[in-house]
Amino acid sequence: MTDQPHTQIASEVACALESLRTTHPLVHCITNYVTVNDCANALLALDASPIMSDEEDDVADITAICNALTLNIGTLNKQTIRGMEEAAMHASELSHAIVLDPVGAGASKLRTSLAAHLLDAYRVSIIRGNMSEIKALVGASATTRGVDVNPADAVTQETIPEAADFARQVAHTTGCIVAITGAIDIVADSERAFAVQNGSALQGRITGAGCMLSCTTAAFAAANENKLIAALAAVVSMGVAGEVAQARMTPECGNGSFRTYLLDALFNQTPDQLLRMAKITEA
Amino acid sequence: MTDQPHTQIASEVACALESLRTTHPLVHCITNYVTVNDCANALLALDASPIMSDEEDDVADITAICNALTLNIGTLNKQTIRGMEEAAMHASELSHAIVLDPVGAGASKLRTSLAAHLLDAYRVSIIRGNMSEIKALVGASATTRGVDVNPADAVTQETIPEAADFARQVAHTTGCIVAITGAIDIVADSERAFAVQNGSALQGRITGAGCMLSCTTAAFAAANENKLIAALAAVVSMGVAGEVAQARMTPECGNGSFRTYLLDALFNQTPDQLLRMAKITEA
Amino acid sequence: MTDQPHTQIASEVACALESLRTTHPLVHCITNYVTVNDCANALLALDASPIMSDEEDDVADITAICNALTLNIGTLNKQTIRGMEEAAMHASELSHAIVLDPVGAGASKLRTSLAAHLLDAYRVSIIRGNMSEIKALVGASATTRGVDVNPADAVTQETIPEAADFARQVAHTTGCIVAITGAIDIVADSERAFAVQNGSALQGRITGAGCMLSCTTAAFAAANENKLIAALAAVVSMGVAGEVAQARMTPECGNGSFRTYLLDALFNQTPDQLLRMAKITEA
Repeated sequence: MTDQPHTQIASEVACALESLRTTHPLVHCITNYVTVNDCANALLALDASPIMSDEEDDVADITAICNALTLNIGTLNKQTIRGMEEAAMHASELSHAIVLDPVGAGASKLRTSLAAHLLDAYRVSIIRGNMSEIKALVGASATTRGVDVNPADAVTQETIPEAADFARQVAHTTGCIVAITGAIDIVADSERAFAVQNGSALQGRITGAGCMLSCTTAAFAAANENKLIAALAAVVSMGVAGEVAQARMTPECGNGSFRTYLLDALFNQTPDQLLRMAKITEA
Repeated sequence: MTDQPHTQIASEVACALESLRTTHPLVHCITNYVTVNDCANALLALDASPIMSDEEDDVADITAICNALTLNIGTLNKQTIRGMEEAAMHASELSHAIVLDPVGAGASKLRTSLAAHLLDAYRVSIIRGNMSEIKALVGASATTRGVDVNPADAVTQETIPEAADFARQVAHTTGCIVAITGAIDIVADSERAFAVQNGSALQGRITGAGCMLSCTTAAFAAANENKLIAALAAVVSMGVAGEVAQARMTPECGNGSFRTYLLDALFNQTPDQLLRMAKITEA
Repeated sequence: MTDQPHTQIASEVACALESLRTTHPLVHCITNYVTVNDCANALLALDASPIMSDEEDDVADITAICNALTLNIGTLNKQTIRGMEEAAMHASELSHAIVLDPVGAGASKLRTSLAAHLLDAYRVSIIRGNMSEIKALVGASATTRGVDVNPADAVTQETIPEAADFARQVAHTTGCIVAITGAIDIVADSERAFAVQNGSALQGRITGAGCMLSCTTAAFAAANENKLIAALAAVVSMGVAGEVAQARMTPECGNGSFRTYLLDALFNQTPDQLLRMAKITEA
């Protein structure tokens, strides 16, 4: 399949954004309180609507009116865990797309085991995390450095094929689409894998780049039948936004401005821009 | 009363801001964790001070030193519900202005019933929500689309009189000032209603425009005896800020910049600006 | 010691930033949900990494991989209090630097007693708060105005010596470094005290200036052996950032822009800048 022109995939990615902008999906987010505001604004930037609800007695009704669910365990606690379980159960029954973001899996037993449990017990569609988190999630040896990727796990030009194999394998084992993000992103189902080389190094210097991506991934998944394309489109969308944001940076700017510009870039993002800027290769 | 010149009302609104800026009220906010940072900064922008406290064992002392209370049920849970009840009880005893923001009423049974209970059990001064939420709150038929207004409920030029009647009726039944916000805002007590046509469509593209307004409404209410004028002033203040923020938008800007500019506009807002820009009509 | 040239201290402060930027400490933050996003971005701006975890069953593992801990009681509740105790216990055992931010001590019995308890029961390295909070914490008479300093407690040019004596005394009694921040900041151990006159009045018009400082103080403390210098460097760093941010303000700007510029200034801050701009006097 490596002979397939990238423009074909880039075109599918562009269509996925078009579909998102016209569908206005309502995305139920159970996400950490650190970056939740950015998650909500990222969804609104892409013409989706966020709703946050993590109370066990509230989530069933909320899930019912939503089109997708994001489970982000970044600031998990017993109350929100119950909310996640209840929401995941209902979303599974309703066949909603569920995106799992195993923030800090590998950094604590509770995070690792909760992420693995959510993956096992419910119909997760897409897993989105950094390489250390995904390795921890599937029991591969990994040492997560808090919520950051362990440098030893980072995907490089040389390790793309190996990372792609790993991603396909995880996709095969879990039955999910897998999006492993970092300087180079890998998005895969059990058969195909893509490397995405969009983005800005500054995305690692703000909190929430990953969390926002998990939420926008849910929005893309709500608006598009093909979940591999949805996940790939979300990854490309955030990467392209990072590049557009970086282009606005002046010497006085830092991560404060970058955060604002990233949302602005999502807001103004067009299918045509994705088509033009997407850097996707099969891997 | 429709013959009363608008300048009279605009002038009262301007004075209400003057009063807020010189009073520096301390506003106790029990509000959702999605937009709480923006709520705090919006209050600080208007020379009020925020304090957030939602723990049952903490709120009584906090309420005692505050001048007003905002109850926003956007990310309610059992712990914060207990905090809301305790705070509302003490604020009622102390005759503090209480603003109720029934976020997502109609979207879940828990939200609808909690909002209705808070309204019944405590001395709520002002209800601030979108039309779907207010309808759900008072048992009128409504289908809330998550935390957004149902398009079918949106107030238009044609439906202003009808919306004004509804708002007056809700005010009469509940004994509260009612602020129904959207593209066109309606603020009413049981006798008088005003339509406010300030604002920017971009306010619907950031999270927290409504939450911020509920908090600034509490600040205006703390600083002004006349709660109808206070609510009206808060609504005009946020609408005018939206227009000022929108005027700064360049093609590269999106909802990230708009959010920043909205706070900036509140920060620099003057009574004279409200007097000049307020678009208020009796309805 | 008053004859020691300020440049000596400023140079140590500059080195402390150099050390922080090259060490990349991982800072465990249990902090309020109002300003947590800004806290995370402030740490990232200074090349530190944040991790937020407040669940009792999660914190021990997280503490173990971190280099310092911040305890901020701004939105305390029973669940996070348990998390704070567990984290403080483990961080104490591991001899990690612990920074205590007694937000609103004096404003409620729960806050005052929890802050005092954390100080008594665990190995707190640095206390960072405003004068009213610190007074309340050590049982001196104080009337905290919510989370703001009581104007009567504010340090002025005239009261610097008195405030320095008080800070040294608190440091002596508690065995901690004490950082009392406001328009004029005082940083002291039991023997030496410094007054820092950097900063912008706008820092009082955004939420989170103090919370961010407590988190960056933990980062400086993780990267530097001398905790007095670490605390002093953090205070100077935030003050200098405030001045740099203020210099970018145009008439249209308000606290929204200032918040962004403050993070930008931390992001671009260099040791040389601190050396050049630090305004430190022994007191």
